[in-house]
Amino acid sequence: MTHPLFAKHEDTLEHALAAIEARGYWSPFTEMPSPKVYGESANANAEATFKAQLNRTFELDQPSTGETVGAELSPYGFALGIRYPKADPDTLIAAAKAAEPAWREAGREAWIGVSLEILARLNQASFEIAYSVMHTTGQAFMMAFQAGGPHAQDRALEAVAYAWNELRRVPAEAHWEKPQGKNPPLAMHKRYTIAPRGLALVLGCCTFPTWNGYPGLFADLATGNAVIVKPHPGAILPLAITVRIARDVLRDAGFDPNVVTLLATEPDDGELVRRLAVRPEIKLIDFTGSTENGNWLERNAHQAHVFTEKAGVNQIVVDSVDDLKAAARNIAFSLALYSGQMCTAPQNIYVPRKGVHTPEGHFSFEEVAQALITAVEKLVADPTRAVELLGAIQNDGIDRRIDEARSLGPILIDSIAIDHPLFPQARVRTPLILKFDAAHDLPKFSGEWFGPISFVVATDSTEQSLELAGSIAEKHGALTLSVYSTDAAIIEAAHEASVRGGVALSINLTGGVFVNQSAAFSDFHGTGANPAANAALTDAAFIANRFRIIQSRVHVAPLAATAPVGQTA
Amino acid sequence: MTHPLFAKHEDTLEHALAAIEARGYWSPFTEMPSPKVYGESANANAEATFKAQLNRTFELDQPSTGETVGAELSPYGFALGIRYPKADPDTLIAAAKAAEPAWREAGREAWIGVSLEILARLNQASFEIAYSVMHTTGQAFMMAFQAGGPHAQDRALEAVAYAWNELRRVPAEAHWEKPQGKNPPLAMHKRYTIAPRGLALVLGCCTFPTWNGYPGLFADLATGNAVIVKPHPGAILPLAITVRIARDVLRDAGFDPNVVTLLATEPDDGELVRRLAVRPEIKLIDFTGSTENGNWLERNAHQAHVFTEKAGVNQIVVDSVDDLKAAARNIAFSLALYSGQMCTAPQNIYVPRKGVHTPEGHFSFEEVAQALITAVEKLVADPTRAVELLGAIQNDGIDRRIDEARSLGPILIDSIAIDHPLFPQARVRTPLILKFDAAHDLPKFSGEWFGPISFVVATDSTEQSLELAGSIAEKHGALTLSVYSTDAAIIEAAHEASVRGGVALSINLTGGVFVNQSAAFSDFHGTGANPAANAALTDAAFIANRFRIIQSRVHVAPLAATAPVGQTA
Repeated sequence: MTHPLFAKHEDTLEHALAAIEARGYWSPFTEMPSPKVYGESANANAEATFKAQLNRTFELDQPSTGETVGAELSPYGFALGIRYPKADPDTLIAAAKAAEPAWREAGREAWIGVSLEILARLNQASFEIAYSVMHTTGQAFMMAFQAGGPHAQDRALEAVAYAWNELRRVPAEAHWEKPQGKNPPLAMHKRYTIAPRGLALVLGCCTFPTWNGYPGLFADLATGNAVIVKPHPGAILPLAITVRIARDVLRDAGFDPNVVTLLATEPDDGELVRRLAVRPEIKLIDFTGSTENGNWLERNAHQAHVFTEKAGVNQIVVDSVDDLKAAARNIAFSLALYSGQMCTAPQNIYVPRKGVHTPEGHFSFEEVAQALITAVEKLVADPTRAVELLGAIQNDGIDRRIDEARSLGPILIDSIAIDHPLFPQARVRTPLILKFDAAHDLPKFSGEWFGPISFVVATDSTEQSLELAGSIAEKHGALTLSVYSTDAAIIEAAHEASVRGGVALSINLTGGVFVNQSAAFSDFHGTGANPAANAALTDAAFIANRFRIIQSRVHVAPLAATAPVGQTA
Repeated sequence: MTHPLFAKHEDTLEHALAAIEARGYWSPFTEMPSPKVYGESANANAEATFKAQLNRTFELDQPSTGETVGAELSPYGFALGIRYPKADPDTLIAAAKAAEPAWREAGREAWIGVSLEILARLNQASFEIAYSVMHTTGQAFMMAFQAGGPHAQDRALEAVAYAWNELRRVPAEAHWEKPQGKNPPLAMHKRYTIAPRGLALVLGCCTFPTWNGYPGLFADLATGNAVIVKPHPGAILPLAITVRIARDVLRDAGFDPNVVTLLATEPDDGELVRRLAVRPEIKLIDFTGSTENGNWLERNAHQAHVFTEKAGVNQIVVDSVDDLKAAARNIAFSLALYSGQMCTAPQNIYVPRKGVHTPEGHFSFEEVAQALITAVEKLVADPTRAVELLGAIQNDGIDRRIDEARSLGPILIDSIAIDHPLFPQARVRTPLILKFDAAHDLPKFSGEWFGPISFVVATDSTEQSLELAGSIAEKHGALTLSVYSTDAAIIEAAHEASVRGGVALSINLTGGVFVNQSAAFSDFHGTGANPAANAALTDAAFIANRFRIIQSRVHVAPLAATAPVGQTA
């Protein structure tokens, strides 16, 4: 009775279930782009596939108007020229509704098995996805491979494991038998049917289309829903490849592939998305993007359960450090990594005006700022190495924001353009860091400046730094908070601030872990406890509302002995 | 380290956890008002307590304006005259916010232990609560005792068990260690803190103030939230007693009792509730009541997670029966029980125009209707027995609705007033049943007619009956669906209709179980899958959003051997 794809991947599922419980390190997907794992020619083949796809129509056998859309630009300086089949939302809804009944009736083991098979095939396509992520988001190749491939697959698997953890707790049937004193007991057979919510909509972002898009997509699929995937117009290809693979697996498993469809669009698709998001058929929406759009969905798509990840202000509180150089190196790396275009990248770095203590002695505010500047300078000194860390700026808006930020205050280190050795037209920028003072600059640093823009903020004290960190996270949202202190009481106060701000805390990162990084199966990404996100990747709350339980009950013979007193055999 | 109240009730909790998994029959609370269980003088004492409370101020040592409110009327024909301390919502919010930190920091075992101790004391107060429920809702004494006491406590315990089931799955800490090839592994210690959402608001109803109010109240408390309980102005006393007991337990356990407060109001409190419901401090709302008010909350209280139970149209599909008399008796009982004022009571009874088959032969539509009329007549023939089944009509609005319904179509059996032997002024009414035809009366029966009002609807076929049942549940909401058929294919079609309509199905009820009844630990009450409710009592989705997880991480020494290659001992 077990679905063959469930049986095929059951071992992976069991490991994932153990991992989300223990929350230690685990991953079934190799994060290094190793030829031994992925195949000797995997990289070359994927690059060739990517290049062959440029300036051609992406093949996807789903309902289409016959027209095509697509206007993606590589941040590395060229138009992709890829055209995608244009789809009418009404047609996609109708196709999904037609695919739904058989998908729903297939039941939980089929949903999980198909989801895991899609993941296995996505893993095999990691190099192809890496090139697609690199040339839509601007991530450097290594990050595009890791975050766009195996790490995104980890997050998807995590969602599938949470889904199964919820689904398996609902018994398929039960025997209910209530004693009635001297009378025969009342006995009923009960049957519990998992009812997926209906049609789901995944709204992708332009910086991490797969990493941020997969959890919702796989949570939906693993709980039996049909899904329309609407990528950001600037990063369609990674999700188009994903949808094509998902449809292949669905078809191979005997399902209508319209369980998953792609809605490719061009820029200025806001009105189309808003009309689609309030359609009565849409019961689940997963969104990553701007606060404005996320809030709109939360306030208007009442017919759906809406999961959002929006803007936030990530912060670092520097109180005292064991090793200033190591701390500065770690912070500089987290600022430079993908040019601060990670939703987890720090923005505000609070340093007491009177400086910080270290085992090497006292360092003034200016000296701490200088340590950070030096660390950034070292990271970006060699263009060939720098571009592999910085990647490229995803869009012109971020570039303009760097210009705008320059006038906000004194510049500690300016953002400069770097020539990419391989892509002369690539939009590569080093981090811009400004100096602020908490006494009068609060309005400038209490909102998000998405991109390679950060602020070293002088505060009266660590107490003020923590107060700012907690209150800004609480009011404006945050995905990460980081603290550096050698004082256990300050660490505990930072913990309190993180609880108040509803934000995950990293403590004294000076080594190979960076505040931007969030490890599947162990780190909860987002909390749902501040305005940056109304959900976490992934917890039970991310899953439990994606299905309902419909029960039936009918009388049956009691199991207990019911012979009336005095009856003879 | 285990909280003493957790330890005290751990055995009950373990049984409850097993029960929600197996979903067989279980309850730790005795549903019969037995002197042996509850004490020989429990009933007399409770009645005396209730009478002594009439026309006096209810004692509750919580923040108050110094004024009092209260205008409850017993459906049995007298004003309660009870005055409750008036509270200003701002003051209650401030008091709850002040009580929150210590409550939050106490942690999960304290929340669960305190919740279970409150339940144990509520159980001891079951007789007192029974009188309060009887004389606010109009329920007959036995139902007031059972549904208002032990059954409500069961539903509360179920919510606590689900809460613990979620909370216990989040580890307090974890060790994360990621291999780095030849380099030492990266190792981190992680800490996971449960962060309650904040302040919760429970909005009670006037028919089942405890049964419908407890799940939200206890789900909130068991996940560490502070709660403001705002009863329906017509049924304050049961929740006032509940709040007083909760505060006693909190105080005894060393907590600020303002973790739970009462907001008593008088009729026309809509504006006050709407202002309170959108306050930024309110993060959770549980509501039972009208569709209009529930929809308002869902569409306006964006800052909160809103759980609603609203109006619905419960339906019975009669296809064929084994025993018409038994079926009619069962249906009649479910119509008469508390005068159809249960949210689970049936309203539309579909019977094929051409009649139904039984082992005793074919019965025409008119004969089926007559069997139902006869069964109702028998149930209400003896006023002394009838009042114990019917109870009293909760408010004049329901009485007026009976009048209004009379003109909708041909009357099969009229509603009459019955004199209550003990309460001459009691508002007691027998069921009104009308005859409709699906061919032209759909607009009349596709909405809810709350109260002792039901319709026998002639349909073209069982197929049409099921189509109506599924589509009305889907569009207008339903909490129950019942089917009578001797044909397995029809039962399966009914199952499909129930899934389409997102409504729980009962099959061939002819004995001691009635469609109105929903058993804790086994039956999911509501599904969240149709407009009658956006949540179920109780599943994981009812709990998982009531708290968040805030994590922290810090580097620690790896556990794995990390000696570099070539190192000598």
